Amino acid sequence: MKTHIKVLEKVRLKKPIFIQGLPGIGNVGRVAAGYLVSELKMKKFAELYSQHFLPLVLLHDDAVASPLRCEFYYCRGKSRDIVVLTGDSQSVTSEGHYEISGAILDFIEGLGVKEVITMGGFAEGKEVSVPRVIGAVTDKSVIKKYGKMSIDFGREHQIGTIVGASGLVLGLSGMKGMEGLCLMGETVGLPVMTDPKAADAVLHILVKILNLKLDLSKLEKIVMEMEEKISRTDEVHKKMMAEMGKQKEENVRYIG
Amino acid sequence: MKTHIKVLEKVRLKKPIFIQGLPGIGNVGRVAAGYLVSELKMKKFAELYSQHFLPLVLLHDDAVASPLRCEFYYCRGKSRDIVVLTGDSQSVTSEGHYEISGAILDFIEGLGVKEVITMGGFAEGKEVSVPRVIGAVTDKSVIKKYGKMSIDFGREHQIGTIVGASGLVLGLSGMKGMEGLCLMGETVGLPVMTDPKAADAVLHILVKILNLKLDLSKLEKIVMEMEEKISRTDEVHKKMMAEMGKQKEENVRYIG
Amino acid sequence: MKTHIKVLEKVRLKKPIFIQGLPGIGNVGRVAAGYLVSELKMKKFAELYSQHFLPLVLLHDDAVASPLRCEFYYCRGKSRDIVVLTGDSQSVTSEGHYEISGAILDFIEGLGVKEVITMGGFAEGKEVSVPRVIGAVTDKSVIKKYGKMSIDFGREHQIGTIVGASGLVLGLSGMKGMEGLCLMGETVGLPVMTDPKAADAVLHILVKILNLKLDLSKLEKIVMEMEEKISRTDEVHKKMMAEMGKQKEENVRYIG
Amino acid sequence: MKTHIKVLEKVRLKKPIFIQGLPGIGNVGRVAAGYLVSELKMKKFAELYSQHFLPLVLLHDDAVASPLRCEFYYCRGKSRDIVVLTGDSQSVTSEGHYEISGAILDFIEGLGVKEVITMGGFAEGKEVSVPRVIGAVTDKSVIKKYGKMSIDFGREHQIGTIVGASGLVLGLSGMKGMEGLCLMGETVGLPVMTDPKAADAVLHILVKILNLKLDLSKLEKIVMEMEEKISRTDEVHKKMMAEMGKQKEENVRYIG
Repeated sequence: MKTHIKVLEKVRLKKPIFIQGLPGIGNVGRVAAGYLVSELKMKKFAELYSQHFLPLVLLHDDAVASPLRCEFYYCRGKSRDIVVLTGDSQSVTSEGHYEISGAILDFIEGLGVKEVITMGGFAEGKEVSVPRVIGAVTDKSVIKKYGKMSIDFGREHQIGTIVGASGLVLGLSGMKGMEGLCLMGETVGLPVMTDPKAADAVLHILVKILNLKLDLSKLEKIVMEMEEKISRTDEVHKKMMAEMGKQKEENVRYIG
Repeated sequence: MKTHIKVLEKVRLKKPIFIQGLPGIGNVGRVAAGYLVSELKMKKFAELYSQHFLPLVLLHDDAVASPLRCEFYYCRGKSRDIVVLTGDSQSVTSEGHYEISGAILDFIEGLGVKEVITMGGFAEGKEVSVPRVIGAVTDKSVIKKYGKMSIDFGREHQIGTIVGASGLVLGLSGMKGMEGLCLMGETVGLPVMTDPKAADAVLHILVKILNLKLDLSKLEKIVMEMEEKISRTDEVHKKMMAEMGKQKEENVRYIG
Repeated sequence: MKTHIKVLEKVRLKKPIFIQGLPGIGNVGRVAAGYLVSELKMKKFAELYSQHFLPLVLLHDDAVASPLRCEFYYCRGKSRDIVVLTGDSQSVTSEGHYEISGAILDFIEGLGVKEVITMGGFAEGKEVSVPRVIGAVTDKSVIKKYGKMSIDFGREHQIGTIVGASGLVLGLSGMKGMEGLCLMGETVGLPVMTDPKAADAVLHILVKILNLKLDLSKLEKIVMEMEEKISRTDEVHKKMMAEMGKQKEENVRYIG
Repeated sequence: MKTHIKVLEKVRLKKPIFIQGLPGIGNVGRVAAGYLVSELKMKKFAELYSQHFLPLVLLHDDAVASPLRCEFYYCRGKSRDIVVLTGDSQSVTSEGHYEISGAILDFIEGLGVKEVITMGGFAEGKEVSVPRVIGAVTDKSVIKKYGKMSIDFGREHQIGTIVGASGLVLGLSGMKGMEGLCLMGETVGLPVMTDPKAADAVLHILVKILNLKLDLSKLEKIVMEMEEKISRTDEVHKKMMAEMGKQKEENVRYIG
């Protein structure tokens, strides 16, 4: 089995914007993406499988096994449709990150996506009382576009690199001529634990960008529901984070 | 050399059910599969080789070398034929697990297999006096089908993941529309040693499912015979288990 | 995404000579190459991407993300044109070094390159007051050609191996029938820090070979400007060096 | 660059027998093969390169770089021709061993080889005063054929596995229908050092099998000459052995 995307439903989308939130530091991206999928009642239309995930199956409903996967969801909007990618895992190998990110970009290019937003956490290494949202882009013009939002584009908070799928999908989207934005919510980072506050901060920016009306007060509740599922895959997350963690120096803060 | 299956005999099978028991925790699956092959006088008809096995040859009969491989056996039944896969090794790489499991599924799909049973051990981390058999499935309907057997489908004993070929072949069989069941016999887990009691527990369930009449009293004797062969490949097993063990957190019990 | 070279401008070059300086010990090669690109006002015409780089993006101008890459530059000369390769990273895997070096050679062969010069640092493990330049070649005839330059071809300073892209591109160029020279500037080696003196020593040889008139007094200033960019990618370099360092025994001095 | 064999001279061989001696424990195989090449004045006709070797070049004659490679030699005999493979390195990855062994077998099959002899060392872990030669085969019939030679086919000295190219080329030759023999000379094993005595023991058997008249008294002298070259590649050997060593348990003696 190689990295591949299984299409469950062929969809024609109207000016789709692509939003990605995969597991990572603080599970910020995954929680934010999961919230969108749940609140917007999005529909799954494709699944991504890869030999670069851990070689195991998850047991849902106690005894029903499913391979690790990422899932593409969509919903219709007034002026434009939304595609969300979330899932169980990121790659556990360095090469796999490139392969999976490449597969994602080829797929969404086929859907007509011209705009990409990836979401992740930024590990501060200490408690964060009011998490900021740090941004990165494919081109300076994107900074201008979102300049009035409360996103810190490195003026106060300079970071050097973005590791993993949040970074690579952003970077590769630029190479495909897409307009890309990465939103990172500040979080403690270690130990690995889901941080709803950081996800909330990212979501507040995102609903403005998407011009959505979402009741963010429900987030905590939804996070608690997700936690149950997430805890069941703790092994996967810890291993994945450990693998990704190998790729940083101690004094470099991880961004996932 | 890439992962490939060498067909020794072309067979046409009647409604074949596929049963897999590879080396792993307690060698539960391998012993159970070896017992079936021996007692049912099954015939080998294919061999699987892979570059994801350890790069060594085993010496049988003292001096005759053979590469590591897995072996497919079959026998005729009244209403349906049986295919068993057992062998020397599982993959020692993460990607290899996906590649080998994928090759197995493509092969048995070609044989017309619609039902899959994988067997393994579940490491309790402590002595088990009367080993239970824990089950996982591809779909809830399979739980119903086997509901009256003494299989614990997570009601009392919840597990989160199944690592390695037992898990992946189960999970991928579901993706191919096959009906899959994984039977795991409780065993100590560490140190690595063959556990005939756990294999016996799994076999008791299996003979009922297959509606076979096997003299399970001979199991201990057969296990002793297998032990000789198994001890010769101890290096392979320990290395394989060590590689697979890297993929778990300390507090997660291994399932092989 | 696989290793590939993205051509930005199709160029026809006159008897091009190829010069490579990638990150490595003391950043000797990279600094020397960067100096050439800057002083000769060279133009970028191709980029190399690879799944064997670290899975991350760099943030330039604070917030603009770009994937790790190497870059090909060219400039016109009187009698012959010059091609320079420099970049963010070397491979972090052993296989990747072969894949990337092979891709580089296929590309420059297509450009008509017949001469190759790779530049790197040689880690002495101690302070070096006046760094020598140590040379290696594809053929003894090349030693004769450059015999009057102040290059130590192993008469006083014997080294056994050259690890990484400096070595492999040299070695593989010989297999393609090209004439290759590797210039290594002596440097401390550890800790990892940019060594302008060693780069200066290599550049002094290089400008003679290329018959260029460059103001090398500006090197220190340019290095300081590069340092800013380099420090931002410290994580990448340290990781890369750590990976490459694994491949040496303690008492073998690293050559990059 | 992928594993490939570069043919320098197209040869038509008469009933060729293939003999392999690559670096490994005690350098037994390599020394024995080197001796044959030297004494029989064999001619190089092909080279094997692979991305599974270490990513470095060796410097011969002080400053002339060459990529790591294995080399095929041949010489004419009265009744049959001889092909010898020796070289700088074995694979440093597990998959690479399979890939390289497969490439070797495909190549010699094309040459018409029906008989294969691989040579290596067997690490006893203690001083060996009179090294025995331990044998392994592809088929019991081969034991009969060589039964009168002083080869220990496991009657007194049982070993379980043969790791690396000596083992895999033997094992895979059997799968190709060739007749294979592996000769392993007993040696200390650790620390890694060339053992001419063990090579001598293997050569004594080999000259009988090949019906050659070689002056084995010169071996020590030739080994000393080889040592110089071998010491220059110490880094490569140690790394390679370290990589291969990872694949054994402490109490399993390494066979290379």
